[in-house]
Amino acid sequence: MSAPVKSPADGAAGVQEAGNAGRPGKVVGIFDLGSNSVRLMLVRVGPVNASCTVLNQVKHMVRLGEGVFLRGHLHEEAMQRTIHVLQGMAGMCSAYGATDIVACATAAVRDAENAAAFLKRVREHTDLAFTVISGREEARLIYLGVASGLEYSEESRLFIDIGGGSTELIVGNSHNFSNLDSVKVGCVRLSNQFFSEDDGPVSASRYRQLQDAIRNQLLHAVKRIEGYDLAEAVGSSGTIQNLAAMAAAADGNAAGLGKKAPEARFLAYDRLLPLADRIRACTLEERRALPGINPRRADVIVAGAAIVQTLMEELGVETISVSNRSLQNGILLDYLMRSRPDVFPEGIPTREQSVLQLGRLCRFEERHSRHVADLALMLFDSASRLGLHKGDSRRRELLRYAGLLHDVGIFIAFENHHAHGHYLIRNKELLGFTDEEIDALAATVFFHRKQASPKYEIFARLASAWQEAVRVLSLFLTLAERLDKTHCQLVRAVEFRRKGKRLELHVETAAACPMELREMERSRKLLRKVLGEKVDFCLDQSKIASKLL
Amino acid sequence: MSAPVKSPADGAAGVQEAGNAGRPGKVVGIFDLGSNSVRLMLVRVGPVNASCTVLNQVKHMVRLGEGVFLRGHLHEEAMQRTIHVLQGMAGMCSAYGATDIVACATAAVRDAENAAAFLKRVREHTDLAFTVISGREEARLIYLGVASGLEYSEESRLFIDIGGGSTELIVGNSHNFSNLDSVKVGCVRLSNQFFSEDDGPVSASRYRQLQDAIRNQLLHAVKRIEGYDLAEAVGSSGTIQNLAAMAAAADGNAAGLGKKAPEARFLAYDRLLPLADRIRACTLEERRALPGINPRRADVIVAGAAIVQTLMEELGVETISVSNRSLQNGILLDYLMRSRPDVFPEGIPTREQSVLQLGRLCRFEERHSRHVADLALMLFDSASRLGLHKGDSRRRELLRYAGLLHDVGIFIAFENHHAHGHYLIRNKELLGFTDEEIDALAATVFFHRKQASPKYEIFARLASAWQEAVRVLSLFLTLAERLDKTHCQLVRAVEFRRKGKRLELHVETAAACPMELREMERSRKLLRKVLGEKVDFCLDQSKIASKLL
Repeated sequence: MSAPVKSPADGAAGVQEAGNAGRPGKVVGIFDLGSNSVRLMLVRVGPVNASCTVLNQVKHMVRLGEGVFLRGHLHEEAMQRTIHVLQGMAGMCSAYGATDIVACATAAVRDAENAAAFLKRVREHTDLAFTVISGREEARLIYLGVASGLEYSEESRLFIDIGGGSTELIVGNSHNFSNLDSVKVGCVRLSNQFFSEDDGPVSASRYRQLQDAIRNQLLHAVKRIEGYDLAEAVGSSGTIQNLAAMAAAADGNAAGLGKKAPEARFLAYDRLLPLADRIRACTLEERRALPGINPRRADVIVAGAAIVQTLMEELGVETISVSNRSLQNGILLDYLMRSRPDVFPEGIPTREQSVLQLGRLCRFEERHSRHVADLALMLFDSASRLGLHKGDSRRRELLRYAGLLHDVGIFIAFENHHAHGHYLIRNKELLGFTDEEIDALAATVFFHRKQASPKYEIFARLASAWQEAVRVLSLFLTLAERLDKTHCQLVRAVEFRRKGKRLELHVETAAACPMELREMERSRKLLRKVLGEKVDFCLDQSKIASKLL
Repeated sequence: MSAPVKSPADGAAGVQEAGNAGRPGKVVGIFDLGSNSVRLMLVRVGPVNASCTVLNQVKHMVRLGEGVFLRGHLHEEAMQRTIHVLQGMAGMCSAYGATDIVACATAAVRDAENAAAFLKRVREHTDLAFTVISGREEARLIYLGVASGLEYSEESRLFIDIGGGSTELIVGNSHNFSNLDSVKVGCVRLSNQFFSEDDGPVSASRYRQLQDAIRNQLLHAVKRIEGYDLAEAVGSSGTIQNLAAMAAAADGNAAGLGKKAPEARFLAYDRLLPLADRIRACTLEERRALPGINPRRADVIVAGAAIVQTLMEELGVETISVSNRSLQNGILLDYLMRSRPDVFPEGIPTREQSVLQLGRLCRFEERHSRHVADLALMLFDSASRLGLHKGDSRRRELLRYAGLLHDVGIFIAFENHHAHGHYLIRNKELLGFTDEEIDALAATVFFHRKQASPKYEIFARLASAWQEAVRVLSLFLTLAERLDKTHCQLVRAVEFRRKGKRLELHVETAAACPMELREMERSRKLLRKVLGEKVDFCLDQSKIASKLL
C-alpha cells in the first residue's frame, strides 16, 4: 500500500519535456467514487474556449459500498481494494500531466461513519482529496452531465440515474432543472439488504417485498415529479444501460444475433417486465451467462431491475431513453462553468459553443468562416422572403453552423476536405443536437463542394425532408463560400430580389474581387437547377466590379 | 491596378485578434508563377516539428508566357492579367495572416527581356517579391516536391515535369538526385511557335515537325539520362495529369462511364499514342469537348502530348506514374529545410518524421505512444526469434509507426478512437509510404482495440499477405497498449521465451501495476488464438507483482 506515487505536479513537469509548445491547454482528472465503482476520466481542456478532449476513461467495480448500507461503515477490504485502484489512477493523472483534479465521492462514503478516516487514508496514499457530495448535489451534477448531451428542448424531461447507493431523479429542460431528488435506493444497497449471501433465484414474493421497499422510499419524490408535465424520461448509469442491452440482446437472440448485444438506446417497460422475471428466476451463476449482461453486475442486477421497474410503474413511464453520459460529465461541466465563466456565461453550453469549440480545435479560419456563415444567412433570408424555399428557423440555425464549420476538414487534409469535415462533424460529439440534425449539418458541409444528389450515399440516407433541406442549404453555403473565395471578405452583402418576373442576385462588393466573380459565373447552372429558375447577377458597386467580369 | 492591398503584417495582426492562443505556428504563402499559370498555396507550419497543413490552394491560367517565346518579352496584356490575379492572391495572404512568403517565377519570366520591369511592377502593386529561379533550380525543387511524396526507394527514378515554358527531367532516388535537367520545351512555348493563331486540326506531318523540334531540344538530356538504370518514371504537372485523365476517360467512355474521368494514376504509351492522334486531328473547338480534358488546356494540349510522346519514345518509357505533387511542394520543403534545420537535419523528411508530425498535430501522448511502440517491438522481435511469425523489417517498421500513432484518433473522440485513428492515417497524406503500407498501418491501429478478422471490411479488403501481417502486428500492438494501460510506463520490458515445449511471456515491471496485469489476463485467449498455442505469463519482479494478481 505504500508504493510511491508521483504527485500530479511532478508528472506535469515530466510530460512538458515532451514538447508542450504544441499542446496548449491543461489536463483535468475527474474522479467519481461511487458505491459500486470508481471511475476516472482524463480530459484536455483547450485554452481558448475550453474545448474538451477525453484522453482516457477507466472504471473499476471496487464495490466500496459493500456492507456500508447494513453496518454503517466501510469494510477494511473494500477500502483496501479502493485505495489500491486509486493509487493506479493517481499514477495515471501524473502520467498525463493532469494539473487539476476534481474528485467526488457519493452514497457509500456519504453514509459511512468512518468516511473521514477513509478519506484521510486515501489522501495519504494517493494525494487525492475527495469531496463528499450530497444527494441533491449529485442529482444536480447528473442533470448537468446528461442534459447537456441531449438535443435542445424547452420541455421538461425526467432524468433517472441508478447508483450503487442512491437513485437520483431530476426534472429539467435544456436550460435548468426544476426538481432534484436523491433517494436512498441503489443496486448495491438493496442487494446487501435483501440478498446478501444468497446466490439462488429470487422468489416472486421476495421480489414483491423488494418492490414495496423501493416504493416506500420513492414516495415523496414520486409525488413531486407527478406534478410535472414530462415530455420524456432519460436514464443514465450502468444499471439502466445494462438492462437496455440485455433487453436488446433478448430480442437479438430471437433474431439469431447471438450473445453480443449492440448498445441499446431505449428501454421499454414491456421489454423490462419479462426480462426482470427471467433475471429473478435465475441463480447467480445462470445470471452471469444471460445474453447481454455485464457478468460483474450479475449480483446486483435484480435489485437494479426492481428499481427501474418500480419507478416506471409509479410514474407511468413506458420507455426510457438511455444516455451514456453520467455524473462525471456533470462534474467536468461544473468545473468548467466555475473556472471559465468567460466561456460559459449562461450555464449549460449552447449548440453554438459546441460548434465553435470544434472549429477552434481544428484551427478553422474564424473570420472567413463567420463571414461565410453571414453570407449564407443573407441568401437564406432573402430567398425565404421571396418564397423560394421553406425558411424555418431550425434550418436557418443549422445553415449558420454549417457556415462556421464548412472548412474544418482542412485540418485533416485540404484534398477532400468536404468529406473530412463531414467525418469530423459526425464523430466529434457535438452537444445539444439530435442525430438527424448532426447528419443534416454534416451533409450540408459535405455538399459545399459537391452537388447534393442521391448518387451520394450521404445524401441518399437522409430522411426525405432533410434531403430537400440539405439541397437548399448546401446551395446557399456553396455560393457563400465562393463569394469569399479569397478569404478577404470583399463581398459585403448578397441578396435575392424579384424584379417583375426576373430573379436577381444582388452582390455588393467592397473592392475589386475577380476571383469571387469568376466563382459566381461558375454557379449559374447550380442556382438554376436548385431554385428552378434563371438568376441574373447584379453588382451593386458596378463601377468597380463590372469591368472585372 | 491600384486597389490597396494590406501588407501581410497587417493581415497577421488582424487574424491574431481571432484568438491566436489556440493556433500555434505560422502561415506561409508559396507562389509559383509559371508560363501557363500562377498558383498560390497557403500552408500552416506547426512550431514543434514543422508539421504542415494546407489551408488553401488557388490557381489561375494567366498565360504569362503568351508571346514571350516568340518575341522575347512579356506582353502588356499578359502582365496586366497576372498582376490583377496576384493582387487577389496577395490579399488572400493577408487574410490568412501569412507572415512568410516564398515566391518563385520560372520560364516565362526567366526568358523575358522585360522581366525586371515586370517584377518591379508586381512588387509595387502587390508587395510580392518574386525570385526568378534557374531551370536547374526548378528541376531540383520539383524533385524535392515530387520525390518526397513517393514511397521510399533506394532505386533511381526518372522525374518528368512539363511546364508552359520548360520541361524538367530529374534522376534521383529517395535520398538525393543524381541528374538535373531543364529543357526549353513547354506546352505554351511550342504552341506559340507551331500553332499560333491556328485553331484547326494539326496535320500528321506538322506533328512530326513538332516532334523533331522536341527531339532536338531533348538530345543532351536524353543522353545523360540513358546512362542511368531507372526503376520507374514519375510525371508531375497539369499536362501529364490531364493526358492521363483523358486516356482514362477514353477507356471509361468505352465502358459507359460518361465524360467525367477519375484522377488517373498512370499514363501508358500505348494509351497515349491513339489519344495524341485523336487530339491532333480535332479542331480547337472539338478538342474542348474531348472526354476528360480540361477545356482551358485545349489550345496547348497537342504540344503537351507531343512532348510526353517524344520523351517516352526517346527514353523507352512505357508507363509514367502520375503524381499530384509539384514545384510548390518542393518550394515549401526547401523553405522548411532552410528555416528549420533542427527538424530536417537530413534533407527530405523521413517516414518517421511524417508519422511524428501526425501524432503531434493530434496532440498524442508522446511518452505513452513511444513506450507502446517500444513494447510492441520487444514482442515482435522476441516472437520472431522463436519463429512465431515472419519478422521482416518492413513489418517491423510499420509496427513501430502503428505504436506511435495508435491513439491519434482520440483527437476526434475517445469513443471509437481506433476507427478515428484509421481514418486519420488513411487521409492525412503521410509521406514516403505506398498505399498498401498506409492501409496496413491504418488497419493495425484499428485492430489495437478490435480483434483482426475478415468480418471487418477494413481487414477483408487488405491483400492476403497484409491480412496475415496485420493480424500479428495488431496482436503485438494490442498487448503493448494493454501493458501501459495506466500510461505510467510501469512495464519495463516484455519478451517471449521458450522453455521446453512451453511458450512463456516474461513481463518485467518497475512497480505494482494491477491494471496492466488485469489487462494481461484479458489477453490470454487472443494470444492463444493468433499464435496458435497457449502462453504462460511470468512476472520477472514477482515479489511485487504476484501478490497483485
